[in-house]
Amino acid sequence: MINALRFSLLLLGVSFSQGFLNDLFDEEEQAERVVQPSKYGSLWPLPQKVQLSEVSFKLNGVSFKISDAKESTAGSSCSLLQDAYRRYYEYMFGSFKRQEGRKSRHAGPSDLTELQVWITSSESDCDSFPSVASDESYELTVDQPYAVLKAPKVWGALHGLETFSQLVYEDENGAKSINSTTISDFPRFAHRGILLDSSRHFLPIKVLLANLQTMAMNKFNVFHWHIVDDPSFPYLSRTFPQLSQQGAYHPYTHVYTPADVKMVIEFGRLRGIRVIPEFDTPGHTQSWGKGQKDLLTPCYSGSKLSGTFGPVNPILNTTYDFMSQFFKEVSTVFPDAYIHLGGDEVDFSCWKSNPDIQKFMKQQGFGQDFTKLESFYIQKLLDIVATTQKGYMIWQEVFDNGVKLKADTVVHVWIGGGANDEMAKVTGAGYTTILSAPWYLDYISYAQDWQKYYKVEPLNFNGNKQQYQSEMANITSSGYQTLLSTPWYLNRISYGQDWKGHYQADPQDFQGTDEQKKLVIGGEACLWGEYVDATNLTPRLWPRASAVAERLWSAKEVTDINDAFNRLSVHRCRMVERGIPAEPLFSSYCPREYRGV
Amino acid sequence: MINALRFSLLLLGVSFSQGFLNDLFDEEEQAERVVQPSKYGSLWPLPQKVQLSEVSFKLNGVSFKISDAKESTAGSSCSLLQDAYRRYYEYMFGSFKRQEGRKSRHAGPSDLTELQVWITSSESDCDSFPSVASDESYELTVDQPYAVLKAPKVWGALHGLETFSQLVYEDENGAKSINSTTISDFPRFAHRGILLDSSRHFLPIKVLLANLQTMAMNKFNVFHWHIVDDPSFPYLSRTFPQLSQQGAYHPYTHVYTPADVKMVIEFGRLRGIRVIPEFDTPGHTQSWGKGQKDLLTPCYSGSKLSGTFGPVNPILNTTYDFMSQFFKEVSTVFPDAYIHLGGDEVDFSCWKSNPDIQKFMKQQGFGQDFTKLESFYIQKLLDIVATTQKGYMIWQEVFDNGVKLKADTVVHVWIGGGANDEMAKVTGAGYTTILSAPWYLDYISYAQDWQKYYKVEPLNFNGNKQQYQSEMANITSSGYQTLLSTPWYLNRISYGQDWKGHYQADPQDFQGTDEQKKLVIGGEACLWGEYVDATNLTPRLWPRASAVAERLWSAKEVTDINDAFNRLSVHRCRMVERGIPAEPLFSSYCPREYRGV
Repeated sequence: MINALRFSLLLLGVSFSQGFLNDLFDEEEQAERVVQPSKYGSLWPLPQKVQLSEVSFKLNGVSFKISDAKESTAGSSCSLLQDAYRRYYEYMFGSFKRQEGRKSRHAGPSDLTELQVWITSSESDCDSFPSVASDESYELTVDQPYAVLKAPKVWGALHGLETFSQLVYEDENGAKSINSTTISDFPRFAHRGILLDSSRHFLPIKVLLANLQTMAMNKFNVFHWHIVDDPSFPYLSRTFPQLSQQGAYHPYTHVYTPADVKMVIEFGRLRGIRVIPEFDTPGHTQSWGKGQKDLLTPCYSGSKLSGTFGPVNPILNTTYDFMSQFFKEVSTVFPDAYIHLGGDEVDFSCWKSNPDIQKFMKQQGFGQDFTKLESFYIQKLLDIVATTQKGYMIWQEVFDNGVKLKADTVVHVWIGGGANDEMAKVTGAGYTTILSAPWYLDYISYAQDWQKYYKVEPLNFNGNKQQYQSEMANITSSGYQTLLSTPWYLNRISYGQDWKGHYQADPQDFQGTDEQKKLVIGGEACLWGEYVDATNLTPRLWPRASAVAERLWSAKEVTDINDAFNRLSVHRCRMVERGIPAEPLFSSYCPREYRGV
Repeated sequence: MINALRFSLLLLGVSFSQGFLNDLFDEEEQAERVVQPSKYGSLWPLPQKVQLSEVSFKLNGVSFKISDAKESTAGSSCSLLQDAYRRYYEYMFGSFKRQEGRKSRHAGPSDLTELQVWITSSESDCDSFPSVASDESYELTVDQPYAVLKAPKVWGALHGLETFSQLVYEDENGAKSINSTTISDFPRFAHRGILLDSSRHFLPIKVLLANLQTMAMNKFNVFHWHIVDDPSFPYLSRTFPQLSQQGAYHPYTHVYTPADVKMVIEFGRLRGIRVIPEFDTPGHTQSWGKGQKDLLTPCYSGSKLSGTFGPVNPILNTTYDFMSQFFKEVSTVFPDAYIHLGGDEVDFSCWKSNPDIQKFMKQQGFGQDFTKLESFYIQKLLDIVATTQKGYMIWQEVFDNGVKLKADTVVHVWIGGGANDEMAKVTGAGYTTILSAPWYLDYISYAQDWQKYYKVEPLNFNGNKQQYQSEMANITSSGYQTLLSTPWYLNRISYGQDWKGHYQADPQDFQGTDEQKKLVIGGEACLWGEYVDATNLTPRLWPRASAVAERLWSAKEVTDINDAFNRLSVHRCRMVERGIPAEPLFSSYCPREYRGV
């Protein structure tokens, strides 16, 4: 396999730099500009255990089949698997039409003619929805007379099919080949998500489905659907249809109907992907106010109504009646056990301006502390949602403000500065958490920023920039004493009050017990929607999000950035070949370029 | 019209910011986030003189026609115009198929049923290629009984058709409408280009044509085709087919055949766009060396050949024989009067290592000054190309090194630091120049960087950042005395030797005579190919390049960034509706979103 792969990879690797750009890159990055074959081929994300041999088999589309093992608990009636067999057959051999012209030929002795899929648990989960507790493990053996993919549940089988398809390559004659291989695989983190924002720009269903497809190619398993926000309300609610009638960019062309939502959920399920909707309140709700009278707080300018509105009005009973009905609907529409309730970035200025709110604050004894009012609202909301039997996720501010949370709450850490402290605090308080702070993919910059995302280690509680903190952890865990200077190089000056940075640096920041680290269940790459829509979302997300995919799936030790570049370059061409406009990492080519514009 | 436009624009304008991003933006940018109707509708780039009235007419696809005026010197035999009529009809009313279902109806009294196109010069240029001297002016009158588009040449008519199509809007009932309008228009600069790089990534023909189409929508008139470079040589030469056989990423799937090149040129011509190929030497030629033995300089490591190659070998006669034949072919394949010969970024280390080159340097009395060797090569190359009757463009280094240039040479200024000085020097020496330095669109950053491109003023000779220099020019040209502090705010500190910046600031930097400024014939937006291919090129280029389009077409005084935002937002949706994935400026929507992935 190595030789065969080298053939195509060397062609891919013809790449040189435009000299004047060189000084923008450090040495390390320079070295990563030419694609070399990885000993792991194009596997992405890298499985936990891989044994590759040099013995290779041919596959041909006429004789090859994917079938259920006799012993499998999920047979031909499991349409999730049958769908996946067809999908992966097409990824590997093209669609059936392309095959028609070929004459059938008998399988040769060096052919691999079958992949048997064997679901081993008595409950295959074929007709279930995936959850945070789903078993996603699988074992794959590629050998004659047939390859075997064993998985306790269908979720592992889906991942194993993707891995099998990634092992297939074209030899120098263009023949599909695969090498004898043994793989044992499972994810490092249970929650591996992508956030897309369909409020700042409406994202047509076609775009959502294409990205769910690509998520499966990267073993992501959570679609965090930030479905509504200030700019627009595209969710068509059966109970409150006026929300999208008034709040969507357009009441017919820019909404998600119940059928659309159902389709997205089922499309995700068939790929092992949970769909977690976010209905963010009490802030980020301008678009809600258009269709729901009295829901938002009227702002005042002096003693007069200003005509503008602030966050959800927390002092009216009608607010909670509305929320009860609304989230009752949401809890039935979305089957996942969790709903994301937002709770970030509440702007207090409108609440402060409103005399009724001020009066309420006084009655409740909140003084001038509006975080107490925010918590008052959120607490009531959480209690409402708890009655629907759903768990909830919330942005970190809700935790920071001391709201009482259910034990199974997932706290979503997103604020860039101090994310490490935050992870330590949240887990120290015993809550489950996921990390997004270093993975805001809407922020773009010139050159290979995927490397930055790749280098994050979620369990250092170090965010993405304080490398010295992991060093401190390494040194002290080896029993040595240490002292710290990194954050206090006072010769490095900058405009503004940089003393704050010096003041805030904490030399004991790196700590976190094993118990705490178990509470980190994963992370999400976020692509907020200010600057993306159907025209540019997909190439902006892929393969940059693939870096996050490997970080969240593969073993902690998988950190070789050069090997990652080599595998990711080929993985990105595979996405392109499957019709996904994943952008290039650097000067190079794909054997089959993207066919769109 | 204003009211009608407001209807759709207000919908477009529903956009709010995610609070936590606010501090990234300055006040000015904050203000530009909600689309408001411009009094100039969606015109882009803004014509030189526009008079709009509130009288509106209806247009319907069944009765409306674009026809040749009786007096026109380009009649129905001018396929360039007939092609353009069909194209703009389809842009305005959709393709013919969409019309089939409609019942014909008689034109009403408020209908506009005809646009007459009248070419006034005895030479229409219908079958010519556009040139730097082409007359692109036009006059457009929209009134009853019919609209009239008058232009000396077909080039102006093409621009006028685009402008006419930009005047058409949908009223509140979805009916196509246009207001009574008088426009007199011509470009501020004659050379308005886009550079695309098909070497770092191969760009399929489909991508090139889509971008030529979009260039026409933005009144660009030069496609600078950076066709070959170090990474690959996709140009299939009839004379030296081994160049692409060996030097392309793939000899069949990643090459431009003679038929492909012809198609690109004709597709451009039909849209008034010149195609100027760049064959950059003596540097940036690694891919040439694969198919042409002895063309590149063999590098030495000590006294031994290192196995690597440097720039074109300037000391062999065979080099010049090759170049003669090669450029003879190029001069016949590409009809434009100019060829871009490159000449940038020559790395001298390989030349220095080679004992034969060293010997030659001695013989010629060049000492250790390798710029003299570079000039020796370029001088011979320019003489060769001059025999083909072509003019040439070169990157600024060739001028800087003192190579003797033909009087009609165009010097291409690209180096970011000191571009203003360079423009002054080049024009001071009497050469024509074009500016690219502030318009390297391959550099991306978060948020609305189109504004940065838009704010450039090419005739301040000020590059893109020293706003104070234009202020100094304004003040002194009004006869006032002034003194300068901007570059010397010493309270603003930064790491490193910032005294250099203070030292280098020159308060007289803004000068440049009128004669010099006439020599600035335009500019080009450059999208180098390290990080773009078919998957992401088009949305990355548009509408960012549209900012450059208006800067190069419209009057110098057209600098209102808010008005630009309002017009450009609608212009970008028009590009989307025409099938071009032009990315969004900010949170917003298009009535018809992009239909691809």
